[in-house]
This record gives sequence, C-alpha cells and structure tokens, in this order.
Amino acid sequence: MYAAKALAGALVRVTLIDKRNFHLFQALLYQVATGGLSPGDIASPLRAALKNARNVQVLKAEVVDIYPEKKLVFLRDGLLSYDSLIVATGAGYHYFDHPEWAELAPALKTVEGALEIRRRLLLAFEAAEREPDPDKRRAWLTFVIVGGGPTGVELAGALGELANSTLRGEFRTIDPAEAQIILLEAGGSILATYPPDLVHKAGRSLEKLGVTVRSGQRLVDLTAELVTIQDVASGREEMLTSRTVLWAAGIQASPLGQLLAERAGVETDPIGRVKVEPDLSLAGQPEIFVIGDMAHFEGRDGRPLPGVAQVAMQQGEYAARLIVDRLKGENRPPFEYRDKGNLAVIGRNAAVADLGFARFSGFMAWLVWVFIHISYLIGFDNKLLVMTQWGWNYFTRRRGARLITGGDPFPLVEVRAESAQVVTKVT
Amino acid sequence: MYAAKALAGALVRVTLIDKRNFHLFQALLYQVATGGLSPGDIASPLRAALKNARNVQVLKAEVVDIYPEKKLVFLRDGLLSYDSLIVATGAGYHYFDHPEWAELAPALKTVEGALEIRRRLLLAFEAAEREPDPDKRRAWLTFVIVGGGPTGVELAGALGELANSTLRGEFRTIDPAEAQIILLEAGGSILATYPPDLVHKAGRSLEKLGVTVRSGQRLVDLTAELVTIQDVASGREEMLTSRTVLWAAGIQASPLGQLLAERAGVETDPIGRVKVEPDLSLAGQPEIFVIGDMAHFEGRDGRPLPGVAQVAMQQGEYAARLIVDRLKGENRPPFEYRDKGNLAVIGRNAAVADLGFARFSGFMAWLVWVFIHISYLIGFDNKLLVMTQWGWNYFTRRRGARLITGGDPFPLVEVRAESAQVVTKVT
Repeated sequence: MYAAKALAGALVRVTLIDKRNFHLFQALLYQVATGGLSPGDIASPLRAALKNARNVQVLKAEVVDIYPEKKLVFLRDGLLSYDSLIVATGAGYHYFDHPEWAELAPALKTVEGALEIRRRLLLAFEAAEREPDPDKRRAWLTFVIVGGGPTGVELAGALGELANSTLRGEFRTIDPAEAQIILLEAGGSILATYPPDLVHKAGRSLEKLGVTVRSGQRLVDLTAELVTIQDVASGREEMLTSRTVLWAAGIQASPLGQLLAERAGVETDPIGRVKVEPDLSLAGQPEIFVIGDMAHFEGRDGRPLPGVAQVAMQQGEYAARLIVDRLKGENRPPFEYRDKGNLAVIGRNAAVADLGFARFSGFMAWLVWVFIHISYLIGFDNKLLVMTQWGWNYFTRRRGARLITGGDPFPLVEVRAESAQVVTKVT
Repeated sequence: MYAAKALAGALVRVTLIDKRNFHLFQALLYQVATGGLSPGDIASPLRAALKNARNVQVLKAEVVDIYPEKKLVFLRDGLLSYDSLIVATGAGYHYFDHPEWAELAPALKTVEGALEIRRRLLLAFEAAEREPDPDKRRAWLTFVIVGGGPTGVELAGALGELANSTLRGEFRTIDPAEAQIILLEAGGSILATYPPDLVHKAGRSLEKLGVTVRSGQRLVDLTAELVTIQDVASGREEMLTSRTVLWAAGIQASPLGQLLAERAGVETDPIGRVKVEPDLSLAGQPEIFVIGDMAHFEGRDGRPLPGVAQVAMQQGEYAARLIVDRLKGENRPPFEYRDKGNLAVIGRNAAVADLGFARFSGFMAWLVWVFIHISYLIGFDNKLLVMTQWGWNYFTRRRGARLITGGDPFPLVEVRAESAQVVTKVT
C-alpha cells in the first residue's frame, strides 16, 4: 500500500493485487482478539485509501504464481503481465511439523484468527461459569499462549487485563481473576530482540497481570484438553490441562516467496524470506522487488531487518521511488532503514519502548504507545473519535466488542446424570 | 434484558438465559450489513449491562423446551427450575416453503447474517470490477431485496447510498452507480403499517437512491443467478439475473413459542406468536409470561401490537413489576402500550417518522432518527464517541467497516480461454 501510494500520480499504471479488500493494522490485532476493538476499527478499505490515486487500480485477487521469464503474475482466476513487480505478501505463523495444531490453537495473524481467539476466550469464561466440576472449571480457566515475541506478550497482557479487570464482577460462580495464563517461549527469554532491562520489566508487568512466563519451555504435544510442554534444557516433560491454547510462534514468510525464489534462482533464508539486493530487487531480476516481512535484507550490522511495519513501509516507498527514477534514467542509492524504535505494550499503564535514543517503561512508555498508535490509525482512516473512545475505554479497562459470534463448537457443560434422571421422570 | 434490569435489587433470584452473550440493537443491523458500523458498535455484552445487578446471573445457554407442569426449562445442555418465567425469544424470518433459499438469500436478522450480507455486497462490486463480460457484470451489479417492511426499506436505502455515494470513484472499470437495486414487496405497498403519505415519500426517497420498488410482486423461484418474480395480481412471471439476493420477509415467531403454547394449552396466531392475557401471562399459567416479538397481545384497536423494540422493552418492565407486586400480594392493572411513534430511514437526509402527534419526512425526520438512535446506544453502552464518529461518517457518506471476511465462495471471474492458452505456453 505504501508503494502504491508513492506511485500515485506518477506516469505509470499501477495494479494493486490483494486477496483481502482491506489494509489491516496488525499491531492492534490482539485488541480485537480480547474484545477491545472491532475489526473495522483497525482496517481500512484499500479502495478508499487509493480512491484519489487515479493511476492505481485495486484488484481483489489471489496471486498463486509468478513467472519472471515471461513477466507474468498468475492469479487463482486470471493472469496479469507486468513491467515492474513489487512482491509483499508478508509472513505468517507456522505450526512447525504439526499442521494439525492449527485447529486446536488459533493464530493471531488474520481478522478471522483474532475473532476465533475472541470467541474461544469468551466462551471459556462462559463455560467455566456453568461448570460445577472444579477440575474441569480449572481447565476452562487455564490459557496457554505459545510464543513470547511481541505478539504473544501483548496478547498475554491483554488477556490478563480481561481476566483481572474487565470481567471483574460480571460472573456469579467463578472469579475471572482465578484464570491461569501461561506464556510459553522456547527461547531463553521473551521479547528476544529487546534490551535485557526492558525484558526484565516486561516480565514483571506480565506477572502483575497474572501471567506466568515460562521461558526455555516448548510445546511438544497438544490435544483438545491436554498441553504437553518440555523444558528445553533438561528435556523434562510436563502436562497441563487447558481448553484454550493460542498461537503466536514460528514466523514463516509467505510461501509465494519460496516459489518466486525458485523461479528467479535466488536464495531464501531458513524462515523462507527471499534474499534481496541492496536496492531490494532480486539478483538477475532487477524489475522484481521483494519487500517487507518476506524479504531478507541485511542491515548495517549484517543481520536481516526485523519483520516490523516500519521496515515494510520504508521499503515500499523506496521501491516505488526507484521505479520512477529508473523511468527517468536516474540512479538511486541503496535502501537504508531508519530505525524509529520498538514498542511493546503489556496491558494498561505498562509498556516497554526502545526508541534508540531513549528507553522507556511503565506509564510513560504506555503513553508513547497510545499516542503513536492512535496517530497512525487516525492518519490512515480518520478514525479520530473511535480511537479516542478506545483510548478512554482502554484506560478505564472497558471492552465493548465482546461478541461471541459463529456457532458454539460444543455444549458448554456436559449434561449430568441427575439432569438426565429428571428428564426421564418428566417425559 | 429490560425485565432483568427491572428485577435488579428486588428480593428475587434472577437467571437470564441467552444463547448469545450480547444484546443486539437490531434497528441498526442494516448499517453493519452495509459497512457503516461494526457489530461491536451495536452490541452490548449482557454481563457488562447486568454487572451491578448482583441478584441476576447470566447464563449463556440455549433453551430447547419448557415443561409448565413441572416448572422446568430444558437447556441444550442442562436443566433449570423456576417459580416465574418470562419468555422472550423473539422472531425471525422464514423462507415460506423454501428452506433451500436460506443459502441463496441471507437474512438480515443476526450479526452473522449481516456480516454475510456485507460480504456478498462488497464481493459483488469486486467481481464486477474484474468481469469483462457485460451481461455477467450486470448480474453482479443487480441486487434484489425481498420484503418491503422497515428492514427491507432501510437496507435498500443504505445499499443505494453505498453504490451511489460511498463507492463513487473507487473503481476503475465499473461505475458502482450502475447498480440496480430492486425491492420486492408482495403486498400492496412498502411500509404497510405507515400512513399513505409517508409511504409515498419513502418511495420517492428510494427512487432517488436508485432503488426500484416493485410492490405486489413476489419471489417464486431462486437459483444462484436467476430470480423469478410473479406479479400477484396478473400472475405474470418475469426472470431477472442477479447474483445477490437479500432476505427481509416472512416474519415468524421463535419456534419455542409454538412449543410452549402446545405444552401450556394456549393458542398461537398465524405467524406463531403466543396469545397472551391482558397481564402478558398465559391463560391458566399465571407464572409464565410471553413478551416481545413472540407475543400476540391485542392493543386497544383489537390488533396485535407490532414487533418493535418499544413494545418488548415496555412489556419486559411490566412483567418484572408484576412479579414483584405479586410477591407483595398486590395487584397490577393490565399492560398498556404507550406508542412513541415509528421511524424508518432511507439513506442520509431522508427518513419518515410517525410520532403520533406529528409526522415528519426528509431531513427533519432524519435528524430525529439520528438523535433517537444515538441517544439510545449511548444510554446502553456509553458509546458516545463511536456514535458521534458514525453520525459524522454517515453524514459525509463514509463507511469504514467495509471488510470482506471469511473465505471467498467462488473465483471472482471465470478463467477464460485466452488465459488458459497462455498458461499452456508457459508451463
């Protein structure tokens, strides 16, 4: 979207292909999953965003393949040719060697995933309220989040707030604060890319919200009610009963990247990102650019740039400008990333921010976070009042978008013997 | 919900059973279907609304049967006994003798139905943008709405605005204003319960929004692409090609009403509503009350009260007060409905309002409508800023909640011979 916007008004014809009709502000998706925001609040229709870019046509379509030698893009239901191609289909989660876990542990990556997580979280509390058996009730009130990156940390924090603040006083047989929230991280610590002092503060904030962080522990088996985790160092296994497991681990670039790399004869890295040249193009294919989460671009320190929105936005604008410069016969210096810092939020009043020149934590970081996110969302879709309301609700711990939609997958409680007996007498 | 609220603090134990965990403000559901609002904006979690009513427990459960002689309510997964019972499971649409039409023509009654309608409306414009065949494109841009009551009229008006204002300038090969919107009403006129002069004005407002009203015409056959309608007077049939048919006809009371009436030995009317006594109880079962859309209560003019929110709210409060009075050994005069008027809105700046003492149409009626709805929603969930933003967006014809979610049911365009040929050459 940033590339298309940067090409608006240039003497080129642009086709923006997306299988979704909206741009999603991923950074707040965990707020949808915990009932703080509606999907419409963090999504902007692509057509509306590009309405005034008369040289840009938006097509809702799915790209299934790319043939560089013929300069063709294959859609699921059609075909397009190109002169220059920018590929930015991002990254998703993968379930290691266990695709069957996808059903059991929904991932926080798409709107549908977030709504499924919201449904399961809210249904778990509803089921617990009706469940007379204390063991089964505990299983409903035990939540496991797999993956201690920013997404997993933010989701765990928001779930902690939901249980400890938002739902307080709304139930009559359970206390939502009894909920056990377990954040699993196979690596040595959560938020691996953050400085150690901020990681420490993040861990303390999570604890205060009732989240148990288990670093160095990984998921080894999963069923509808049982979670088996293993201590990476000792190899010791442990079993937990939990009815709700959520997924935020195993980042993998879009499979289109692997396909494109094979067709173009370039390399990918272990998580499937396409290795790109200093100008973001592919070696030997100067008219193809790969940007964002699916690109492996080495920064000054020799490490690939992180998969964050800032990188994708800057790369999109760079690729667009390079295309325009080439048409004018001009050159452009290699892409350089300007790091504006990292932010992660752990519930109301607690966040960690690493802005490079300064590090914050606690309420100040939270204020910075709220300000940046609200200003970003307002910028892209004029959602001023919605965002202000949300900021206020967030501050007062209210969550209004707590709808359980879609069918119920199961009876909330098992019909017990004494009930069945009464039924027999009546009929 | 109004009954439960009225019983808060009384010396009774109240259990509120609902299969959904939220209260839905039905009157704005068509705004969800046309991308103006998110479901979260017009829904309020029951638990939050009743948080401070300490004698009220909310259970998310589905009632499948009632046995008056044993004073038992059967849930899908459990059983409850009662001393007094208030039944208010409302009404839905039915597809006459054609249950198979449910798949082809989603109804505007639930959140899921509204999101499915939104998905189909937006996908139709996306498919039209990509469809090169003019006949097929016209089928994508032809929308049929079945049922000319307030819901059908409001949906048709909002769809007219979507096509003529909101989407203007967002497409490159189609003009969304080419859309044909057909509102079918089998009866003699749309908005049958409104005074003739307001009906006339509503018809003119719809015309201005590009809606063709076809009164006295009914649907007789439906497939994925063909709609067969029949003129009720002449019996003449006509076929239209349309890919999008929406349902807002054939109101029928919740099937639980029929079941309860059989068990309690009372009558139902032709649309399945349970006939109730002057105090809303059932004849011979003074501890069971049936209220709202599923009750047949004769007003002063001998006609049953209409299925509108005002009736349900007043009846809920009445039943609650009657129960409290009975416990005190006091009597209560029969229920009397205080009609506060009727309102239907047909797009921005156009509405018809019949407040009894005065009738409005046009911009004044629209202002009345906006004011009443915003104040109602603010009252029940403090969505002040969200609603203000929405009022503003509505006035400026913006619609931000235009997400197509869920899977695509079909390829948007058929892959054509020439594409297939190129594919053959490349591979």
